[in-house]
Amino acid sequence: MLADDYPDGVEVVLVAPRNPLNIGAAARAMANFGFLRLTVVAPFEPLWREARSAVGAPELLRTANECATLAEALAGCTLVVGTGTRTHRKPEQPVVSLPDLEPRVAGELACGGRVALVFGPEKRGLTREDFSRCHLLAEIPTGARQPSMNLGQAVAVCLYELTRSGTESARDPTPAGLQSPAMSGTLDRLAEVIEETMTASGYSPQAMEAANRHDLRVLLRRLSWAETDAKRALGVFRRILWCLRRPGAG
Amino acid sequence: MLADDYPDGVEVVLVAPRNPLNIGAAARAMANFGFLRLTVVAPFEPLWREARSAVGAPELLRTANECATLAEALAGCTLVVGTGTRTHRKPEQPVVSLPDLEPRVAGELACGGRVALVFGPEKRGLTREDFSRCHLLAEIPTGARQPSMNLGQAVAVCLYELTRSGTESARDPTPAGLQSPAMSGTLDRLAEVIEETMTASGYSPQAMEAANRHDLRVLLRRLSWAETDAKRALGVFRRILWCLRRPGAG
Repeated sequence: MLADDYPDGVEVVLVAPRNPLNIGAAARAMANFGFLRLTVVAPFEPLWREARSAVGAPELLRTANECATLAEALAGCTLVVGTGTRTHRKPEQPVVSLPDLEPRVAGELACGGRVALVFGPEKRGLTREDFSRCHLLAEIPTGARQPSMNLGQAVAVCLYELTRSGTESARDPTPAGLQSPAMSGTLDRLAEVIEETMTASGYSPQAMEAANRHDLRVLLRRLSWAETDAKRALGVFRRILWCLRRPGAG
Repeated sequence: MLADDYPDGVEVVLVAPRNPLNIGAAARAMANFGFLRLTVVAPFEPLWREARSAVGAPELLRTANECATLAEALAGCTLVVGTGTRTHRKPEQPVVSLPDLEPRVAGELACGGRVALVFGPEKRGLTREDFSRCHLLAEIPTGARQPSMNLGQAVAVCLYELTRSGTESARDPTPAGLQSPAMSGTLDRLAEVIEETMTASGYSPQAMEAANRHDLRVLLRRLSWAETDAKRALGVFRRILWCLRRPGAG
């Protein structure tokens, strides 16, 4: 993919960034490498749009999206890539080294998908719950002695990697027979209705625990749903749920 | 090359950085990708070693080198790589796109050379005079709409690129028959003695102008001297100069 005409299908999502200077630095790196869509989730500082460090990117900050939750930010995305370095505990998601990420992203865009690159807050990075909404973990190959990167620098390195090859693959027409991948919001709705169905059906444990909910999110993302299939499953579970709840059932 | 055991043969040189936060950010990126040797040329702020942004890299800042001039900083280096984006006027040096830089650096290290990666100050980047001390210009492929990168982010992207491939080529033994490339300081001495020789020989223009001096630096770097050959040339010119200056000559 090429800087300057990067497809509109990749979003940069910053989760709970503390320092507006880092939001500005992320925006500047986006402008450098031709990315346009920024979403800021639950920022610490309400006046983050005024970040002075956003040289050349004030418009990008002005039109950035602000969401209260990561789930909301990701609702329209079909491939969610969490970013991190080697410090993370053994992840539950497939891990790809950053230098190998570009073909995955280009492939998703070629299928008409929408990709989110998710970055955690400055001090602690993404949590296990954040990662449970990711299909993939992209690992920046930092050294073990000082793995933790500055947020703005991590964004710059990831966006550089996505544009460095300059391939045209992202703009290939959608290959015939490939189906649009499921949006994160569809998977969230599916998870909810499955949970309700499990509770309504008296599946043990009767009340879903946070841990089960987490495992369900991870599982659904591991399955690589097409959007049409996920919607079909949603219909199936809704129907089951309706049956379970009608008077006289169970 | 690999983060965590990057050969000691690559130096990061920051020319006239204005903001200590950026020096700290550069140091942090060096620590992330396993680079150890930092030189700061004519920093604007005398207390730059205290940069708070150097998370995980205080030792690296403490042992960093401080020089008054770029020439002094580069004296021991054999391959000097200036960095920039696409804004620069038509360069006089060979240009390599950043994704193609690693093999050049690895090759130089394999010959026993020492490499400098040179970054210009925040506002204006490297000057034409700075570039005249470079063998090569590495161009970061930013987009034309917002080419100018933040200094710390530019350092992070370049160092990521040098370590991303994880090849072992840099640690190959020196191939037989390859000679050590000339150090920048040797080329500077050679340029001086050539200039003195030209003046002493009455070469027109009699007094070297700044422009000629610049062209000479560029020319010498384009020639890819081996250190032994550069020293041999130095001896030749010194001898000529001695002859020109002895009483009764000319």
